[in-house]
Amino acid sequence: MYSLHLDAFFLLHTLYVVGIVAESMTGAIAAGRKNMDVFGVITIATITALGGGSVRDILLGVYPLTWIAEPSYIIITLCAAVIAIFMANFITRKRKLFLILDALGLVTFSYLGSSIGYQATGSAVIAVIMGILTGISGGMMRDILCNDIPLVFKSELYAAIALIVGILNVITIKLDMDSFIWAILILVIGFVLRILAIFKRIELPKIHYQ
Amino acid sequence: MYSLHLDAFFLLHTLYVVGIVAESMTGAIAAGRKNMDVFGVITIATITALGGGSVRDILLGVYPLTWIAEPSYIIITLCAAVIAIFMANFITRKRKLFLILDALGLVTFSYLGSSIGYQATGSAVIAVIMGILTGISGGMMRDILCNDIPLVFKSELYAAIALIVGILNVITIKLDMDSFIWAILILVIGFVLRILAIFKRIELPKIHYQ
Amino acid sequence: MYSLHLDAFFLLHTLYVVGIVAESMTGAIAAGRKNMDVFGVITIATITALGGGSVRDILLGVYPLTWIAEPSYIIITLCAAVIAIFMANFITRKRKLFLILDALGLVTFSYLGSSIGYQATGSAVIAVIMGILTGISGGMMRDILCNDIPLVFKSELYAAIALIVGILNVITIKLDMDSFIWAILILVIGFVLRILAIFKRIELPKIHYQ
Repeated sequence: MYSLHLDAFFLLHTLYVVGIVAESMTGAIAAGRKNMDVFGVITIATITALGGGSVRDILLGVYPLTWIAEPSYIIITLCAAVIAIFMANFITRKRKLFLILDALGLVTFSYLGSSIGYQATGSAVIAVIMGILTGISGGMMRDILCNDIPLVFKSELYAAIALIVGILNVITIKLDMDSFIWAILILVIGFVLRILAIFKRIELPKIHYQ
Repeated sequence: MYSLHLDAFFLLHTLYVVGIVAESMTGAIAAGRKNMDVFGVITIATITALGGGSVRDILLGVYPLTWIAEPSYIIITLCAAVIAIFMANFITRKRKLFLILDALGLVTFSYLGSSIGYQATGSAVIAVIMGILTGISGGMMRDILCNDIPLVFKSELYAAIALIVGILNVITIKLDMDSFIWAILILVIGFVLRILAIFKRIELPKIHYQ
Repeated sequence: MYSLHLDAFFLLHTLYVVGIVAESMTGAIAAGRKNMDVFGVITIATITALGGGSVRDILLGVYPLTWIAEPSYIIITLCAAVIAIFMANFITRKRKLFLILDALGLVTFSYLGSSIGYQATGSAVIAVIMGILTGISGGMMRDILCNDIPLVFKSELYAAIALIVGILNVITIKLDMDSFIWAILILVIGFVLRILAIFKRIELPKIHYQ
């Protein structure tokens, strides 16, 4: 049992680091495209990486926030932003890199968010909502600050994938199956779905009013 | 006395449901106009309905948030959004429907917000501020997410009506007159004023700098 | 020793009042330029003045928020906004006035934010981050609500000055040198740097991706 708990802790920690690195990089790429200065780029990268989780924890009233309790996460975020700035200068297909990193951030944060939402409230509905919120908020703030139309509102299955990841996660928790292997499986499913949706242009029906 | 308390509870609960249904529908109508997909429309409807109250409770430090303690409110919000999507397809005068629902959301949320602000702090000033905040925040988020100029900043007496509703409510509370009948009266006054302001184009003076 | 504590309290209180007055005025000037009505102008002024500190305290979980515990701060903010509206009508070089007030708000709020961040967490990293956040958030909200590109992302050394003020403040705290005189010195350094950056057009390097 102890090893399971250790696993769970290790898993959530690892996913969090993967998520903030990926999200920070998307923020740096998006802000750099707008010709902002170094500081603006790093600020937006940090908000993108830490914003989603902060919104979730503030809504749940879970204090202290992760990055305030453990400021080393901020250092990781800053390093990821700086690396992204350098990478972006040497990579020509930035759009593709951006979408892949964004997909990675989306699925890890949806998974984490639904786990933390369930832990905090014991409600499956709230868990799924928190998964969606954590998954999409960071990118939404990034897009608003960069004055782009938020990806979440125009893009292929974006929030739907956060929903699927959250629901699958809650099912495994309810069935006491929330192990390392299931987590990886759910993340892979979410990631593959998102990539498929992007490249096959699968979309949800749009609303058109007469 | 007991029945009075029961009344008050019933009143606040009913108003909250009326408010989230109305606000959710305005969110669904506004987002649908922007050709977003189903998920985007529902997300914006939910944020519009639950955003104002969440901002207020977070500022006051009142936890847990209403919709987290009682996830059934989220279900109501989602249903209202879906109904609004269908309604909008059959109604030609969407602009009018939108403004009427928005007025309903504005006055119920201003009333509720000022009641909760007074309960939490005992300060009349804070109560009125919380009334304004609850009344206008949801719609403000809706407009920012839809990339419209927030209604509150350009529109006829918008925030002024939240102010009037808040002040009237605080006066009745101070005079121990906060009963069901006064609540209805205040809500009707606020609603009629807003509708008059829209259709008679009554406006506050605009600021023009030389 | 007692007098020192008294000094510190007096200092923080005075700086807070200077900061909210300056920020409120920038909000009123920016919103007035957009031809908003009286209420819109006052609302944006209030959000500009109290928004940064509120974001900080919510992230730190420090309750009650300053202006909720002490509603007189709201009255000060409102008066400053009304005065700014009148002033703006008689001053031709509004842009200069705006930038000077904004610089004043930036340095006082960065100083205050880093002090409060350090008090709440004991972490130098968090203190500096909270300094930046408090310094830039109010103005960022103002610019988003006015639909301008946030000053912080395009402007000369903007956030960098919040960083410098925060770091200097944390150094004086760590060295037990956080007295009235050092505070004034740090604020003057920050203010002069910002004004120099504006008028000499000193900028951080911009990011340009190939």
